[in-house]
Amino acid sequence: MSDHHVIFMPSGKRGQFPTGTPVLTAARQLGVDLDSVCGGRGICSKCQVQPGSGSFSKLGVTVDADALSPFNAVEQRYDDKRGLAPGRRLGCQATVQGDVVIDVPASSQVHRQVVRKAASDREITLDPSTRLYFVTVEEPDMDAPSGDLERLREALAVQWDITGLTLPMPLLRDLQKVLRKGAWQVTVAVNHQTNSIAAIYPGLRTDPLLGLAIDLGSTTIAAHLCDLSTGAVLTSGGVMNPQIRFGEDLMSRVSYAMMNPGGDVEMTRAVREGLAELATELATEAGAAMGDIVEAVIVCNPVMHHLLLGVDPVELGQSPFALATSDALRLEAREVGLDALAPGARLYVLPCIAGHVGADAAAVALSEAPDQGDAMTLIVDVGTNAEILLGNRDKLLACSSPTGPAFEGAQISAGQRAAPGAIERVEIDPVTKEPRFRVIGSEVWSDDPAFAEATKDSGITGICGSGIIEAVAELRLAGLLDANGLIGSAEQTGTPRCVVEGRTHSYVLWDDGDRRILVTQSDIRAIQLAKSALYAGARLLMDEVGIDTVDKVTLAGAFGAHISPKHAMVLGMIPDAPLDAVGSAGNAAGHGARMALCSVAMRDRIEGLVRRIQKVETAVAPRFQEHFVAANAIPHATAPFPHLGPLPDVSFNTASKGRRRKRV
Amino acid sequence: MSDHHVIFMPSGKRGQFPTGTPVLTAARQLGVDLDSVCGGRGICSKCQVQPGSGSFSKLGVTVDADALSPFNAVEQRYDDKRGLAPGRRLGCQATVQGDVVIDVPASSQVHRQVVRKAASDREITLDPSTRLYFVTVEEPDMDAPSGDLERLREALAVQWDITGLTLPMPLLRDLQKVLRKGAWQVTVAVNHQTNSIAAIYPGLRTDPLLGLAIDLGSTTIAAHLCDLSTGAVLTSGGVMNPQIRFGEDLMSRVSYAMMNPGGDVEMTRAVREGLAELATELATEAGAAMGDIVEAVIVCNPVMHHLLLGVDPVELGQSPFALATSDALRLEAREVGLDALAPGARLYVLPCIAGHVGADAAAVALSEAPDQGDAMTLIVDVGTNAEILLGNRDKLLACSSPTGPAFEGAQISAGQRAAPGAIERVEIDPVTKEPRFRVIGSEVWSDDPAFAEATKDSGITGICGSGIIEAVAELRLAGLLDANGLIGSAEQTGTPRCVVEGRTHSYVLWDDGDRRILVTQSDIRAIQLAKSALYAGARLLMDEVGIDTVDKVTLAGAFGAHISPKHAMVLGMIPDAPLDAVGSAGNAAGHGARMALCSVAMRDRIEGLVRRIQKVETAVAPRFQEHFVAANAIPHATAPFPHLGPLPDVSFNTASKGRRRKRV
Repeated sequence: MSDHHVIFMPSGKRGQFPTGTPVLTAARQLGVDLDSVCGGRGICSKCQVQPGSGSFSKLGVTVDADALSPFNAVEQRYDDKRGLAPGRRLGCQATVQGDVVIDVPASSQVHRQVVRKAASDREITLDPSTRLYFVTVEEPDMDAPSGDLERLREALAVQWDITGLTLPMPLLRDLQKVLRKGAWQVTVAVNHQTNSIAAIYPGLRTDPLLGLAIDLGSTTIAAHLCDLSTGAVLTSGGVMNPQIRFGEDLMSRVSYAMMNPGGDVEMTRAVREGLAELATELATEAGAAMGDIVEAVIVCNPVMHHLLLGVDPVELGQSPFALATSDALRLEAREVGLDALAPGARLYVLPCIAGHVGADAAAVALSEAPDQGDAMTLIVDVGTNAEILLGNRDKLLACSSPTGPAFEGAQISAGQRAAPGAIERVEIDPVTKEPRFRVIGSEVWSDDPAFAEATKDSGITGICGSGIIEAVAELRLAGLLDANGLIGSAEQTGTPRCVVEGRTHSYVLWDDGDRRILVTQSDIRAIQLAKSALYAGARLLMDEVGIDTVDKVTLAGAFGAHISPKHAMVLGMIPDAPLDAVGSAGNAAGHGARMALCSVAMRDRIEGLVRRIQKVETAVAPRFQEHFVAANAIPHATAPFPHLGPLPDVSFNTASKGRRRKRV
Repeated sequence: MSDHHVIFMPSGKRGQFPTGTPVLTAARQLGVDLDSVCGGRGICSKCQVQPGSGSFSKLGVTVDADALSPFNAVEQRYDDKRGLAPGRRLGCQATVQGDVVIDVPASSQVHRQVVRKAASDREITLDPSTRLYFVTVEEPDMDAPSGDLERLREALAVQWDITGLTLPMPLLRDLQKVLRKGAWQVTVAVNHQTNSIAAIYPGLRTDPLLGLAIDLGSTTIAAHLCDLSTGAVLTSGGVMNPQIRFGEDLMSRVSYAMMNPGGDVEMTRAVREGLAELATELATEAGAAMGDIVEAVIVCNPVMHHLLLGVDPVELGQSPFALATSDALRLEAREVGLDALAPGARLYVLPCIAGHVGADAAAVALSEAPDQGDAMTLIVDVGTNAEILLGNRDKLLACSSPTGPAFEGAQISAGQRAAPGAIERVEIDPVTKEPRFRVIGSEVWSDDPAFAEATKDSGITGICGSGIIEAVAELRLAGLLDANGLIGSAEQTGTPRCVVEGRTHSYVLWDDGDRRILVTQSDIRAIQLAKSALYAGARLLMDEVGIDTVDKVTLAGAFGAHISPKHAMVLGMIPDAPLDAVGSAGNAAGHGARMALCSVAMRDRIEGLVRRIQKVETAVAPRFQEHFVAANAIPHATAPFPHLGPLPDVSFNTASKGRRRKRV
């Protein structure tokens, strides 16, 4: 029997095979990425290939029309039942009969490229940790009384050469029923990263496995339910983190744990319940069975990380901010209460970078990939703490800066969480000093006649984080606020919207006779403290690298998506940069979680990267204090800002002091 | 620096070492079994050695008095504080200065021989799977913010060369507190069989680790709490299996699971609660902390096995009696509800031999070790099912025989469980035909004047399993029962104790005017069925081996301990054998559990043996039915019984038939 040249495309892998070799066998021997669940039984159709014909001069072969065996009965049956695209063959049925070039379509590849749907989607090459294997298990025999599990193991070893898998207890519980339901044929979901069985389905299962990419925030738990065979997001959603009732921000939750014996246990229970609820919601919405979900990936800050794992976060609330564990974790999902997923579903938790820089920051690094390029990139993820990353392919630094919750609308007189009715965009006319704004839930500006009607349901309830940032920046741009952060008086500014409030002035953003929404002097102070902390953290990293400017600024996080780059720069939250080099990364943490969910290689990458990241602790850096003080000015006083252009040269310091004196 | 000869005894291992080598280091390099928890810090005292002096002509060395370095300050401090026996040195402090012979006392060996205390104790060489390692962990550093766990791993790797351990979640929960309590020094209990951390103790811990050897029976859960460093039993105890309320015997529990949805879950919860309760009781009794218990070993029958694991036992109730899993299991103890033990405590479950021959039978095989000798040994463990083993070092066979619960006192007119007040020993005078008996809780026979006083608390409540066996055998020996199992009439036997009961006769064992305890004809039938099943199973195995007699018979189980070999043979429960070759193994299953607890080698042995055992299924063997029918006679009609001597040649068949006819 003569050998034939077989070339697989797009990989270009080639070899010589005797007449009659199944294409799937040839692909396996060459290490070609050709999927198969049934292992060559002709029933799963995952191994579809497309043989070429004609001359492939570049490849040095000419392909005869009959280079593969004729369409056989198995293929015909599959075609009749489910339909096979023209030219397609089942790789396990078609055998090599001559020189042939075989195209493996993307849909038959395990490690296929995920198609980019939106601009914010980064490309992922699928590299799933869980795969399906169809097996026929020997029936029990009284004369050779081995257990059902032992015969399943034997089948996996003989039919797939897979050995040494662990079987989680909940799967052992169901094993006998599933084997009998499938009439001794089952499809086993094997997690190759942990060498464990994730699920066992009766009969042949070719439906895709699902996974959850979870961004566990202090306020919101958000998740994507993904198809692990395509990387596609089936549905996304979020729930409030039920821990909210123990404290709005992280430190108040740490305090709750410190002050209340068992408080950490309560919070652990709460967050796990929230997580389980969200998983159920997403599965229901996607019309999927919970048992189809075989993996979850979680990214979160260190306090959430510890509370999720059931570790008291008390050490994270005090120097030296020691994590119980920093490395990536590979757990069973049921260990964090996700026991309604597939019985052996696994959970991967990204590594934490430091006691204040969590797995969420690691996920942002994975998603934004500053380490994959040359541009010196500053990434800030703003929440109660700002997590800051700076670097490029040569080095990457990380720190956390205690911004406090002002950016989230807390500590602001009219502040509120981002919710319908909250002012989120603000403009102030530099000439008339009159404001206009938009509230969440409506696209209509407040100076539009349709505004009242458009907001009649939500009302105008307060100012959210992005709103207060824009308001402060707009006050500065309109000359109503000086570089020191003082609001001028009505006389100084020429607008009656600047009103006296005790010893200082406030700006009236909204007054319908019923309710006034003000930007007060103490609001300005709160924002100044927060933005100084953020800027000082970024500057500290820039000092470490030895640079004064960055090539690129990325604002990450849900909040980052709503901040306008220009206002952030006017406020001095971020260093000066060309405006078009400042962008929003959207939900970068969530996307990083999705990348890690769909690709084992991405897990390896982030684990390697986190080990490489240089951690900078702001709390012990003397220069942090210096930068913090210098950053109090608006924008700031530590570096020029050529990209911003001149700002109104006003100063209300003396005047306000003078007036205060008079009043005393 | 010249090298010196160093010889360790009793191993005889020898090597050459330069001046100044610590004895512990030399021992490690030679693979000498010398214990150490602190790793050579001079604080644990586990590495004590005894240097020899003088001429060791056989070993070819002469030892100088100063062959080891002088007693040093560390040793002196230890001696002052805790006392060091004369001549003893700390192996980590004493260094080699000349040729030396060093004796490693048994107490410094990890793999020491367990001292045999009672005749029923088999010898075990300790081969513990869990060992203690003292480590000093780096304190957290804000500038190098790795987690506490990562620094603990680092310490184990650097100080003990131990890597790749898993840390169960409950230990992660406590890790930070323990490290701080121990001021960054902790002792880690490492389970080497599962490569996992079982417990972490603050500071240096040299107190022995403990383990539970559990014999989980259908009626009783019995356990030994053992010192894993010596193999000693600290305390033993038992509780009723709380599953009793779901059915007395195994099959009624399987039925309960079949008939009641969720019934298996209820029974799983019940048995786990019983287990946890027993563990707590034993620890309390021994004055030990639950956290000191780092391992448990469980042996049990297949139904208990499945219910413990949370697997519905329904398949075990019907042909082909398929086990969910038959191999040995290495689990976390908390997975079966033993979560009050050390947080990472492990559970080892012995392998099951077949669907009716469980891990308890495997434990009996381990304990009785028929595979270690030449004698063809028959081992029967009698319960609701009899488990039967037959073999020697060449081959070993196993089967289970459905004896039913008669041997446990069920299905017997006056039958009861073995408890105070139950008749357990019976004698019938062959001349007077008068009985005497003893009840559980008293050593006094019923014909003793002190009997009434001795039994006034317990009363005489019924007959337990061993009592009914003796009663039936004694009836046969006294000529009151014929070979067919018929009780004679008063006329035929000449004793008024044979009374008419319906169409048959009963024998009055006890009658105080108030209550009568009888052995009825249907009691005899129940015992005949049970003993026929037992004997037929044994014969079936003998057929397979091709033998008519065995060299040795061992009655295992708590019940076995109370059966008199002679009565068992008269009854025909076991094949004929010299009476002195019939013995009781006591609680062989419990002892097997203890062997597996103290020795990893014993786990390997039983796993290898169970794979080798030839399983014989009685339900499908035609010869089983033949043997069963032939075994109905008392003793039986299938083989001669030369060791028993002649039995009364009586026959009540015709007479009773005749009388029955008359009565109709």
